[in-house]
Amino acid sequence: MASNLIATDMMTYTPAALGLVGLVFAAGFYAKIKSLPDGNETMNRIAGYIREGSMAFLARQYKVLAVYCVVVAIILGMVLSLYAAGAFVLGAFLSLLAGFVGMKAATYANVRTTQAATTGNKANTLLVALDGGAVMGLSVAGLGMFGMGVIYIVFKGTPEFGQVIHSFAVGASSIAPFARIGGGIYTKAADVGSDIAGKVIENIPEDDPRNPGVIADNVGDNVGDVAGMGADIYESMVAAVVAAMAIALTGTAATMPNLLTTPGGDNRFMGIMLPLLLTAIGLVVSIVGIMITRMLKHLNPAVVLRSALIFPPLILVLVSLVLMPILGVTQNVTLALAVGAIGGALIGLVTDYYTSSTPVAKIAESAKTGAGTALIRGLAVGMESVAIPLFIVVACAFVADRALGLYGIAMAAVGMLAGTAVVMTVDAYGPISDNAGGISEMSGLGKAVRDITDELDSVGNTTAAIGKGFAIGSATLTVIALFSAFNSEINHARQLAGAGELVLVLTDAKVLIGILIGAVLPFMVAAATMLAVGRAAGAIVEEIKRQFREIPGLRELKAEPEPTKIVDIATKAALYEMILPGLIAVLAPPLVGFLLGPAALAGMLAGALAVGATMATFMANAGGAWDNAKKYIEKGKLGEGHLKGSETHKAAVVGDMVGDPFKDTSGPGVAILIKVMSVVSLLIAPLIAMS
Amino acid sequence: MASNLIATDMMTYTPAALGLVGLVFAAGFYAKIKSLPDGNETMNRIAGYIREGSMAFLARQYKVLAVYCVVVAIILGMVLSLYAAGAFVLGAFLSLLAGFVGMKAATYANVRTTQAATTGNKANTLLVALDGGAVMGLSVAGLGMFGMGVIYIVFKGTPEFGQVIHSFAVGASSIAPFARIGGGIYTKAADVGSDIAGKVIENIPEDDPRNPGVIADNVGDNVGDVAGMGADIYESMVAAVVAAMAIALTGTAATMPNLLTTPGGDNRFMGIMLPLLLTAIGLVVSIVGIMITRMLKHLNPAVVLRSALIFPPLILVLVSLVLMPILGVTQNVTLALAVGAIGGALIGLVTDYYTSSTPVAKIAESAKTGAGTALIRGLAVGMESVAIPLFIVVACAFVADRALGLYGIAMAAVGMLAGTAVVMTVDAYGPISDNAGGISEMSGLGKAVRDITDELDSVGNTTAAIGKGFAIGSATLTVIALFSAFNSEINHARQLAGAGELVLVLTDAKVLIGILIGAVLPFMVAAATMLAVGRAAGAIVEEIKRQFREIPGLRELKAEPEPTKIVDIATKAALYEMILPGLIAVLAPPLVGFLLGPAALAGMLAGALAVGATMATFMANAGGAWDNAKKYIEKGKLGEGHLKGSETHKAAVVGDMVGDPFKDTSGPGVAILIKVMSVVSLLIAPLIAMS
Repeated sequence: MASNLIATDMMTYTPAALGLVGLVFAAGFYAKIKSLPDGNETMNRIAGYIREGSMAFLARQYKVLAVYCVVVAIILGMVLSLYAAGAFVLGAFLSLLAGFVGMKAATYANVRTTQAATTGNKANTLLVALDGGAVMGLSVAGLGMFGMGVIYIVFKGTPEFGQVIHSFAVGASSIAPFARIGGGIYTKAADVGSDIAGKVIENIPEDDPRNPGVIADNVGDNVGDVAGMGADIYESMVAAVVAAMAIALTGTAATMPNLLTTPGGDNRFMGIMLPLLLTAIGLVVSIVGIMITRMLKHLNPAVVLRSALIFPPLILVLVSLVLMPILGVTQNVTLALAVGAIGGALIGLVTDYYTSSTPVAKIAESAKTGAGTALIRGLAVGMESVAIPLFIVVACAFVADRALGLYGIAMAAVGMLAGTAVVMTVDAYGPISDNAGGISEMSGLGKAVRDITDELDSVGNTTAAIGKGFAIGSATLTVIALFSAFNSEINHARQLAGAGELVLVLTDAKVLIGILIGAVLPFMVAAATMLAVGRAAGAIVEEIKRQFREIPGLRELKAEPEPTKIVDIATKAALYEMILPGLIAVLAPPLVGFLLGPAALAGMLAGALAVGATMATFMANAGGAWDNAKKYIEKGKLGEGHLKGSETHKAAVVGDMVGDPFKDTSGPGVAILIKVMSVVSLLIAPLIAMS
Repeated sequence: MASNLIATDMMTYTPAALGLVGLVFAAGFYAKIKSLPDGNETMNRIAGYIREGSMAFLARQYKVLAVYCVVVAIILGMVLSLYAAGAFVLGAFLSLLAGFVGMKAATYANVRTTQAATTGNKANTLLVALDGGAVMGLSVAGLGMFGMGVIYIVFKGTPEFGQVIHSFAVGASSIAPFARIGGGIYTKAADVGSDIAGKVIENIPEDDPRNPGVIADNVGDNVGDVAGMGADIYESMVAAVVAAMAIALTGTAATMPNLLTTPGGDNRFMGIMLPLLLTAIGLVVSIVGIMITRMLKHLNPAVVLRSALIFPPLILVLVSLVLMPILGVTQNVTLALAVGAIGGALIGLVTDYYTSSTPVAKIAESAKTGAGTALIRGLAVGMESVAIPLFIVVACAFVADRALGLYGIAMAAVGMLAGTAVVMTVDAYGPISDNAGGISEMSGLGKAVRDITDELDSVGNTTAAIGKGFAIGSATLTVIALFSAFNSEINHARQLAGAGELVLVLTDAKVLIGILIGAVLPFMVAAATMLAVGRAAGAIVEEIKRQFREIPGLRELKAEPEPTKIVDIATKAALYEMILPGLIAVLAPPLVGFLLGPAALAGMLAGALAVGATMATFMANAGGAWDNAKKYIEKGKLGEGHLKGSETHKAAVVGDMVGDPFKDTSGPGVAILIKVMSVVSLLIAPLIAMS
């Protein structure tokens, strides 16, 4: 009995402790990056512009978000409890902290990567970018783990636990749409704007130092693909864990019938503990994965990085296979984890196929007859790419449900996200390499340096597809799990109030109405973000044209451009334009829930899931495919007659331009929307249960 | 009592009789068109090419569909009954007959419209095109009405009635995806292919007689926008009526509590009768509407045609207001009809706004910075345009549900579709005017003639938007109604078998899995149709290039092109490529129903509804907006520097090219998908009720 207590105690503290381990490694990588040589003065001046622009954006964004957090915290404090308000603030604060630390590291790592490339040592250059990314990866996973672990230690077993952990999740989640969409608008407005002004109008090459938009483009990589992506991945991890916990919390014995080897044990305790514990173990596996990847730096980086993404979830499955009998848990948990791990990998491979294989070659081929056909083909590829990943999710959900009911579906999502730290590391590695290339070009370091950074950048692009597969698959599973957690929560509250069970009937008019409302919201978010990018890019084009017109000697390299003006336009636009889509995500559930009741809200979540999961996949993959079709043409795979400057290439550039907001602003925005709405609904469920 | 019986008898025969009245008018317009002068020899040669190409396509398409009908009829005969098989064949046959007659009339009307335009009398020219369209409009509505009316007379009150009328609806519905998608692929492949080859590659004007693709483009207008659209509208009308009947058939007294003024009357009889009767009255109102429109030919045609679309449903509401008390029915029916009529008109106006007002000007403006920004803006406009129409549908469903439960939702759809005959008339009027313009250009009749046909064509384009509003709104309401009819049917069958009620619980894993499967299907259909258009257009471009290369003297107008080769390519491609999306629509319900059971099938219908209704609206409106943005630029509204040939115009052409399959192939394909799947599910419901 005593040993059991000790084991329970150990389990209680393990998640927070392993979260701290992750943070220690993050600190180590941070120190290592800062100690590296940072190149010559020109490089540092440019890197300084990028760092200042990035940090200035973050500072202004955080001010806006601080207001948001205070308002929501006050509401939560009044409606729920001070604990809830505190947990909300903690969840939000850790998201912002991860973004701040990670992006700071990235803006030190970019110029150091360029410097490493000047030595001609590709393996070491890879390492610098990877270490820079690891700071973000380990901060995100470590802080998320630590936060949930601490809340578990403090509140476990208390009646407030559910409310507090849900509030933490709402804090973690509701930063994401603002950060990801704001960052996404920034990065794509700067990217598209600079491209149009530079390549199309002024006819100068990419990353040319005369183009005042290039600094903003590089800032965008940091605020969008590092900080914004970090908030997204942090929320995914927290949401998946909380979804599983929530089902265990409100579920009855029938919810998880096959969890324990000996029936009658405390399956609620175990059900709450397991997602935390397994995610913490996943973090350790990821740390080991990052260290192994570092050791393999001399191998083909594309293969190494892909393996780094695919293996951690599979290793977690092996750990679970050994651990579950020790904990008195059936191997159904291992089965659910395995389903998630394998499903995530398969989705990643399918995503990879659609964004870098035959379909991409076909898009490139169709660019020969102009932008119209390239666009039609790319849209078709994106639409087609929806089917298999979603069917894989369906299969995962089916098997996981058979194994452990809806709790199993949540655990499959936990399994899919076991490699969160690595996924984020590789995701942040991409923009660091991209920045390194930009700094090299603007500093005039020559082709040899640029070739190294370009190669590392292209590896990052292709491996990012696999990470996206895990992200979209786990999001869909998480939303399904959260959805049933929401239902349990509603009925739990009704039971406490002595009311009858609320059965959500699909043919109820309120549910159907909710489904249609939910179906519309992803389109509203997608439209708002596409328009925002279009508008901001237009403003940037005008400013760049103005500078070329009004700054004498700019075109002849005799005068400097004014990059800070572009940075300012992008910053203001992104901060202003992130608000509407962010508020849709946060406010739609309470509005529909309080006005039309829980049945309509449930319908809304289902409708948003159907449209959001498919639209997000469609947009992400169409965008990725256009991007790579352009690169395919640039590599000369269609022949010499179709290189840069040809009509074919111009047609492909149009596809890439449309694909930019698709894959980096609207698609992720839609994916976040459905997660945030589910988390918020879970929190407000007890409040609307009786209406 | 006797007078009651007479009244009942009268009501029994009225729908079929009024259907016949519609057909008599159709025959009258047909004879009138044929008696008009058909112009000179060149015009007749070109019109002959178009007519032959159109009829040849229809003949080959009908052969394929005959095989399909025989196979399905045999299956239905074995699984259900010979009556079911017969009703299925009748439903399908009437669809094909309407397409055949209407398209034949259209291909006579086109050249006679051109001939009328040579006299310079715009009002008379309008009349010829309108009369040509009226043949299609009255055939579609008349045959649909007649078919349902006959089945009602023969089978009313028998136990087979439900099965037979559902089989008729499946026959009517399942022709639609093949006809509409096949026609849509044909017309857009020919359109896009000829445009790319002519305008982009060979640099000759639109409809130039040297372009061998122009005939195929004109054939496409007939097979796509006349015959294909006819099958679509015919199925919409039948589906809406059958949805209401099906709810009344299987419903209990509680389903329609507020139908009769005196409780305890035969609300089932009345519930079944009303949708038929009101639709038949709608047909009469539509005939009157067409006659009034003809009389107003000297007024502004844009205003007259818009009014013709909006008024019939409103007049039906007034008729209902008088008629319902006489029949002993509450005004709740009138309220539901009014909701549909007003909702349809509002959706039409919103659609009109998004496809011809400020958003179009913004797209045109954004074309100044290239195709990329024009595409981003157009996609954003399309996405944004989803919200208000769907919210209007939600409001309609909400009010109609309050008035009469789910039966009220079906009646709102019936109300929205009261003007079916006029909608189809105006829809067919468009391609007739378009053809007339093509014939005028190819016959070298000069600018004065072309100007008249162009003006008529542009009127058709803008009014078509309103028709689309009615179509999409009614489709969504119909699918909601069919969905609950499906649920009633399942439980009716279970009750007969002595089994307990099947409650479709939204959080059931099977339902959720079904939702995801259903969400994917519209993307599969959209992808297949986009790819089909892209592929076929590519083949047409190659053939046109070959002809310009290999036929000496073609460019100098000294030799004739070979249009039949293009017609042949488009025909083969369309017939081949329509099969997969058509089969998805027809086979998905039995596959999911028999393999995963009724809960998964219900989920699938809900998921497909959420994605299909939004995607169809998005694609239709984005396509319409790009089309009009191009025209806006061509009219010189951006100034002289942006006319045809400018970079701005080229950018807008790219948008139009992408929009073509969006609005005329994939969007309609997706809208049909969700309707057909619902109708098929309703038919198979009793077979899968116990699995």
